[in-house]
Amino acid sequence: MTGLQVNFDPYIASYPDFPKPGILFRDISPLLASPRGMAQAVDVFESRLQDFKVDVVAGIESRGFLFSTLIAARLGIGSLMIRKPGKLPGELINARYDLEYGSAELNLQTCALVAGRRVLILDDLLATGGTIAAAKALLLRQKADVVGCAVIIELLALGGRSVVDLPVVALQAYED
Amino acid sequence: MTGLQVNFDPYIASYPDFPKPGILFRDISPLLASPRGMAQAVDVFESRLQDFKVDVVAGIESRGFLFSTLIAARLGIGSLMIRKPGKLPGELINARYDLEYGSAELNLQTCALVAGRRVLILDDLLATGGTIAAAKALLLRQKADVVGCAVIIELLALGGRSVVDLPVVALQAYED
Repeated sequence: MTGLQVNFDPYIASYPDFPKPGILFRDISPLLASPRGMAQAVDVFESRLQDFKVDVVAGIESRGFLFSTLIAARLGIGSLMIRKPGKLPGELINARYDLEYGSAELNLQTCALVAGRRVLILDDLLATGGTIAAAKALLLRQKADVVGCAVIIELLALGGRSVVDLPVVALQAYED
Repeated sequence: MTGLQVNFDPYIASYPDFPKPGILFRDISPLLASPRGMAQAVDVFESRLQDFKVDVVAGIESRGFLFSTLIAARLGIGSLMIRKPGKLPGELINARYDLEYGSAELNLQTCALVAGRRVLILDDLLATGGTIAAAKALLLRQKADVVGCAVIIELLALGGRSVVDLPVVALQAYED
């Protein structure tokens, strides 16, 4: 891990038992509310992403969108949306992934220009890794070179890093 | 209408009959993919929002998030999320609004610091205005001074501007 290090914990609120009993929800609302915190977040991402030589940022709906365009703008590159079903028009590919109860699906437009390009996946949270792994699968099917993923928060105990099998840049890590 | 003017139509794709027959869907994916287009979008928003003296940007889930943090960063201010039900932790207020079939709901955290502050609502699209009007209602209940809304696309024929009853900054307008 190289580059700028900042403690973002003061910008993250914790809510016990949300969205259900036993889950400690980490809320990035205080970070969004802070111009200083957000400026630092973009600085840290830029610093730690230098060696990735990213061509395109792929943001995962919804909270990934809060950072995908911002990071893309700082890096001077474009971004794309990876969305839930029923949201994207045109020809799509989809990937299903398992949740604790049931499953979910992500979509990508086949017209997204990712073939042979170095793509960074952007989401707010790396927990079990299922969502980011599904996004990676979509991008690989479109022949992208998926170079890593960047998140605000990583929950280490859930082992998502080995599931996504990508270099991870996380602003703030928690044991659980 | 004052400030910088740019034709964003080349950055917007059109899909007939999505998500259902008779609807012409306007897709901002080409704009997101273009670093030049996105830089121009932020420049135009900044130029045309100067007189609004915004303190906080309120982004509406999901595509509002693609621009709320970006505009907030350019203006040097913070942002907040207005989200669909079940997504935000903590004490919330909610507003229901009508869709063509059925209804939908938006949530805002009561801890969001908006009382007495000049808030700009950010979404991707102004169509019938129902979503933005619901967001405005939430912010007013928290005693915010809602100074306007900014969107990428405005669909003029649907009359949303009179429904939201706010100054509107739109990058690109279409008759329908």
